[in-house]
Amino acid sequence: MKFEVTILGSGSSLPTVNRNSTAQFVECNNRYFLIDCGEGTQIQLRRFKVKFQKIDVILISHLHGDHFFGLPGLISSMHLLGREKKLQIVGPRELEGLIRPLLDIGGNTLNFELEFIGLNYPEHSLVFEDKKVKIHCFPLKHRIPTHGYLITEKAPEFKLNKAAFDEHQLRLTDIPKIKRGEDITAPNGQVIPNHELVFPKKAERKYAFCSDTKYNESMLEHIRGVDLLYHEATFIDEHKARAKQTFHSTAADAAAIAKAANVKVLLIGHFSPRYNTLDAHYNEAKEIFSPVLLADDGLVMKI
Amino acid sequence: MKFEVTILGSGSSLPTVNRNSTAQFVECNNRYFLIDCGEGTQIQLRRFKVKFQKIDVILISHLHGDHFFGLPGLISSMHLLGREKKLQIVGPRELEGLIRPLLDIGGNTLNFELEFIGLNYPEHSLVFEDKKVKIHCFPLKHRIPTHGYLITEKAPEFKLNKAAFDEHQLRLTDIPKIKRGEDITAPNGQVIPNHELVFPKKAERKYAFCSDTKYNESMLEHIRGVDLLYHEATFIDEHKARAKQTFHSTAADAAAIAKAANVKVLLIGHFSPRYNTLDAHYNEAKEIFSPVLLADDGLVMKI
Repeated sequence: MKFEVTILGSGSSLPTVNRNSTAQFVECNNRYFLIDCGEGTQIQLRRFKVKFQKIDVILISHLHGDHFFGLPGLISSMHLLGREKKLQIVGPRELEGLIRPLLDIGGNTLNFELEFIGLNYPEHSLVFEDKKVKIHCFPLKHRIPTHGYLITEKAPEFKLNKAAFDEHQLRLTDIPKIKRGEDITAPNGQVIPNHELVFPKKAERKYAFCSDTKYNESMLEHIRGVDLLYHEATFIDEHKARAKQTFHSTAADAAAIAKAANVKVLLIGHFSPRYNTLDAHYNEAKEIFSPVLLADDGLVMKI
Repeated sequence: MKFEVTILGSGSSLPTVNRNSTAQFVECNNRYFLIDCGEGTQIQLRRFKVKFQKIDVILISHLHGDHFFGLPGLISSMHLLGREKKLQIVGPRELEGLIRPLLDIGGNTLNFELEFIGLNYPEHSLVFEDKKVKIHCFPLKHRIPTHGYLITEKAPEFKLNKAAFDEHQLRLTDIPKIKRGEDITAPNGQVIPNHELVFPKKAERKYAFCSDTKYNESMLEHIRGVDLLYHEATFIDEHKARAKQTFHSTAADAAAIAKAANVKVLLIGHFSPRYNTLDAHYNEAKEIFSPVLLADDGLVMKI
């Protein structure tokens, strides 16, 4: 099944012509998520040919404008284009009170149900779950309450080992039990352990989004071993003091977290527009952790 | 003196990769105005190399999102880039209550004074005036309260006719009076009419912005004879019924207004994204009024 992330905005608080503010589109097992929604996200979705009506849930990390000022425009466009499917928005509990008045003033009633799921900081909880995907939020450390998100695909059911099934002369009615992971008593009274009747499950793939945050080891328990970690790296080592002051990370901070969490791949972004090249970001991170990749608007990462 | 309009967004409610939502930058006699501020306006200002800290006043026509959702992002960026100069925003009186909470939630206090000047619909009034420019608002007819804006350069003071001044043996202390337009009593007791002492003033140039609105003859008195009229033309004749239903104009409506108001040049915009070409807009308007121009993002019109 497909599990991929499209970077819609890799810039920080000041969007530029080349880097939009933060937004990411995530497809996981035919479920569609948007993480953050900086100004201009709806245009980026169009630019990168993402059908934005597919989005089921929007996850907002925090209430700095570069992470949510694109919400009213995106929601309005969804309405104008005839959306009828419910939309859920997970984010800080104040979000609903900021967004609804902007939509209401225009005099239109949305064609679709818009549900806000408010988070209290600091919160570590399951914010979405269905048969195919689950999403947890966890606290980051920024100037204002901020949450990261962990998106986990659910592994499919156990796959039946038909040869073992036949060998033990099991019944068709046993199959649902086997797929649920139960042990089975064979007609001869022998108890067959479940692992002898199924093939091993593939590991669940995981994607963690951590922006904005200062260097913060308390997030490690939530992101350990993920397949892909997106971690903000607003600054380079030269501007370490500025990073500390603004509760942001350097590229080295991001890499140190990736290393300590033993993730598979690190993707850094949220770059300050003060840098003309990202060579220093790359080199400073790479010294600590590999592989590291630089986010760019339009980049698609397969997980 | 320079008087020019830069089109930052010529699209309508659904911004696309090629046409942003409504926004225009107007330079008039070294004063700088933004009219409307759809989502992504700050990016358009960067794209077209307009220094947005110059902006003195923002004029908002109405509270549909495609005309104001770019405000919080633009104001935030002005703050982050160190603005200290006061910013005035003229628009519907509900605007301040929608925008301030979005700025406050981020925890930053603006470096500069932000003053909202609230309009009550329908209102025809002077909303800005200094030595060089004056701006009036006037009511349009849309689904929600909407105002158009008329920007007028003030002609410079009367220019003294030195030969006439000498001929009548006037005094230096008479000069300010002459420049203000007063008649002068010469030393010999003769009253010299002002027009004999000055050269004729150049006509004041005027720009009128009318979007969004249905066909509306009541605006004629406010825009008569302007040098440039921007009038929305969301639809073409084929979709006349849709225009009526949504309180928008067709290209022919815009041209009929331009003709009745005897304006010098008509610029149409706010095009629905349903049209692949604008040939019909152009042709239908041109049949009624000429010269007509089609707005495009990045177009600069000298007045």
